[in-house]
Amino acid sequence: MKTLVIISHPEIGDSSSQQFLLSAVPKDKDVTIHHLESVYPDGNIDTVKEQKLLKQHDRILFQFPFYWYSSPALLKQWQDDVLTEGFAYGPRGSMLAGKEFGLVLAIGVKNSEYQAGGRESFSISELTKPYQAMAVKTEMVYLKPLLIFQFAYMTHEQKMKLYIDYQQVLTREKDASLETREKWLLEQLEQLDGKAFQPNEETTLSNAMEQIKTNRTTIDELKMILEQIR
Amino acid sequence: MKTLVIISHPEIGDSSSQQFLLSAVPKDKDVTIHHLESVYPDGNIDTVKEQKLLKQHDRILFQFPFYWYSSPALLKQWQDDVLTEGFAYGPRGSMLAGKEFGLVLAIGVKNSEYQAGGRESFSISELTKPYQAMAVKTEMVYLKPLLIFQFAYMTHEQKMKLYIDYQQVLTREKDASLETREKWLLEQLEQLDGKAFQPNEETTLSNAMEQIKTNRTTIDELKMILEQIR
Repeated sequence: MKTLVIISHPEIGDSSSQQFLLSAVPKDKDVTIHHLESVYPDGNIDTVKEQKLLKQHDRILFQFPFYWYSSPALLKQWQDDVLTEGFAYGPRGSMLAGKEFGLVLAIGVKNSEYQAGGRESFSISELTKPYQAMAVKTEMVYLKPLLIFQFAYMTHEQKMKLYIDYQQVLTREKDASLETREKWLLEQLEQLDGKAFQPNEETTLSNAMEQIKTNRTTIDELKMILEQIR
Repeated sequence: MKTLVIISHPEIGDSSSQQFLLSAVPKDKDVTIHHLESVYPDGNIDTVKEQKLLKQHDRILFQFPFYWYSSPALLKQWQDDVLTEGFAYGPRGSMLAGKEFGLVLAIGVKNSEYQAGGRESFSISELTKPYQAMAVKTEMVYLKPLLIFQFAYMTHEQKMKLYIDYQQVLTREKDASLETREKWLLEQLEQLDGKAFQPNEETTLSNAMEQIKTNRTTIDELKMILEQIR
């Protein structure tokens, strides 16, 4: 599976959350990072090139800071320029059909404010309807978004979890079985180990891996007992 | 009441719906037309000037073609640049509080497709939640939007109705009484008469005016009878 990450952020160098996410991108996997403001500093988008890029990937992600309940302007320009009738929708316009589409949002306000009675009044599912509608119109499968609330206030543990969640969004097959997901996680943990974290975090990691393996053994034993009862 | 119409359309000269709306703007009223792509062809928005403009008006309208369930990119840039913390929201950021906010949308697909099971899957109310949330956050009163579906296919009668509806959105006080609204309508009809329409349409107009006056007489008579019964 090939994943295209379309990032829109006017000042990506100054964004600690975006820099963290970039550091989590696995180098050995089929992941293309495509930061629009770097590629098109003058705002003139190359529609032909972008459409070719879309065709080459199976999973398309929009990654951006959630400004006024939507993306920065350049990603909107990209949508209007690239997702043309005859390519993305309409008669003979099904080049995106069957691909997966997901959002990776960095959000400055905490999760609990996004509900009736909260400061933001509406849920993220309500506010991102325009993207869900885009996925429907272009016949893409809409993935569960990765929502990053208040990155600056996250603990080390929360950031570690985000690191893994993000890698899953980038590379893990959708609807994988519990066992496949477990295997994926262990592989990733083994690769991570000692690379990006501090010594005390390494201990946490190896503990987590042991825990997962133990759980698996327990599950396998329970399954055997069930078999015998039958 | 002073109304600011912020229009975003990359090719406004070629848009028959936008040209029609422009022709309907009353010259003798407090209406400011502000087409972003004309004012900022290079995309560099003057935040100070825009904030000053907002302060000078009581009703703010966003008028644009509904591209990918949102506005053209320049209006999004305007939101991000102009609606800053400390001006539009946050501590001491209540410069828009109490103003009215509304959408005037030109939509290429017909109304009935905007529902579950329709081609667009979601309603306009669902898809415009980001604007409603913006109104909530900036403490503006969210008006019922003016939705223009498939202008190109409208009949003359539908366009006449749109002409009046648009003028109401621009100039009529919100929550006016039935009698005030009637008076407004008659005034507008008298001004329109013979100015923008063909002779056969003039007849339709004067018939409409007669009908409204007759209805009013009937209502007044009914009220008198009710008074007598009491």
